[in-house]
Amino acid sequence: MTSDTDPTVAEAACFEAGIKFGTLYHQFAGTPVSPDSAASLERAMEDSIENQPHCADVTVDVMIDELEAELADSAADYTELTGRFLEVEIVVDYEGCEVVTRMAMEDGYPLMRVASVRGR
Amino acid sequence: MTSDTDPTVAEAACFEAGIKFGTLYHQFAGTPVSPDSAASLERAMEDSIENQPHCADVTVDVMIDELEAELADSAADYTELTGRFLEVEIVVDYEGCEVVTRMAMEDGYPLMRVASVRGR
Amino acid sequence: MTSDTDPTVAEAACFEAGIKFGTLYHQFAGTPVSPDSAASLERAMEDSIENQPHCADVTVDVMIDELEAELADSAADYTELTGRFLEVEIVVDYEGCEVVTRMAMEDGYPLMRVASVRGR
Amino acid sequence: MTSDTDPTVAEAACFEAGIKFGTLYHQFAGTPVSPDSAASLERAMEDSIENQPHCADVTVDVMIDELEAELADSAADYTELTGRFLEVEIVVDYEGCEVVTRMAMEDGYPLMRVASVRGR
Repeated sequence: MTSDTDPTVAEAACFEAGIKFGTLYHQFAGTPVSPDSAASLERAMEDSIENQPHCADVTVDVMIDELEAELADSAADYTELTGRFLEVEIVVDYEGCEVVTRMAMEDGYPLMRVASVRGR
Repeated sequence: MTSDTDPTVAEAACFEAGIKFGTLYHQFAGTPVSPDSAASLERAMEDSIENQPHCADVTVDVMIDELEAELADSAADYTELTGRFLEVEIVVDYEGCEVVTRMAMEDGYPLMRVASVRGR
Repeated sequence: MTSDTDPTVAEAACFEAGIKFGTLYHQFAGTPVSPDSAASLERAMEDSIENQPHCADVTVDVMIDELEAELADSAADYTELTGRFLEVEIVVDYEGCEVVTRMAMEDGYPLMRVASVRGR
Repeated sequence: MTSDTDPTVAEAACFEAGIKFGTLYHQFAGTPVSPDSAASLERAMEDSIENQPHCADVTVDVMIDELEAELADSAADYTELTGRFLEVEIVVDYEGCEVVTRMAMEDGYPLMRVASVRGR
């Protein structure tokens, strides 16, 4: 039995995409990272999130330029991963509905948003 | 300019709800927890996630019975927080659209799902 | 059989204290936090780490003044927990040896150090 | 001015090693992991912790056999990283003192211990 408050396929697909973004961000935020270790962290973030159900593709860019700018002002040679060093795209495919979602900095806040919904 | 692949308000609301669930789970999974510390952890999980944008209400139940059953078989008096000790409800209110989402164990896996979408 | 490379009781106690500090910091770094939710997060951090073996006492201070200063420059009303908002003291009691350890900001880095070792 | 409750170099080295272990475990516990993604996660865990001060070497083994045994009983094709899938060695070199520390399962609990202290 269905109800008119049940989620549509596209709404459920968007919920799934949000789960992946929250997971990626809060699992890995705080990880010690440097320009030399950025590549292996990117790869592990992509591979681990792609394990989750309905996750078609994850692309993580740890921005080396931003890391280097941060470290130029610091006595340390590494920092903690946070949103201002990240650009991420996650594609979810759920029952034929494809949702593309992205994270990038906007007004100093790592904004996550739905870029497109196809197949609804 | 809008496109027919832009998310609807309800789809964006479901994406927001997913972010909150992924955040809650992966921020706090692994936290040392015992029957005595469960209440303060529940409260901190609720209060921290309610900080996030569009998050109307969070209810976290760390299931003491399940914790006690786990610890009865263990030499330790605490364990790590994971999905099988948790029941969670998160309500998002996004531009007039209310999304109710829940997590509970199903077939041994902590399943997160959209319970209802209202106001679309 | 013992060896002269075996740890002393005091060395093992300091190792235990370090584990608690790494746990506390990396379990909770990244948690959404605001002046209103700081108190429940402090309490949960203390209670959860006190579950760990040999942990006699944990005191967490989420510094509201520092949070408010950060948020005064921001469009958001919360931020992510990180070392510059924290002062922490952890006391370990291991086989009669008491180790007091502290974390506070020093030169822009959240420095963790052993304040005292007693009973060796 | 020093006091007889000040930590020795070897005690400070053991504290540093403990920090690395707590960091490694609680940063990465809960990460979605499968036999296919284990290798990139091992690499990222090693590289990220090696960024930390005084950390000479980190070796992480995500035990594929244990993962496969867990997944054989499950409807899912991935699980969450936890201690029973991990063997870890961390070597700290602090002011000429070398501390070797290890984590492995013992009686169902991921036990972290100091294996040797040299150069004290």
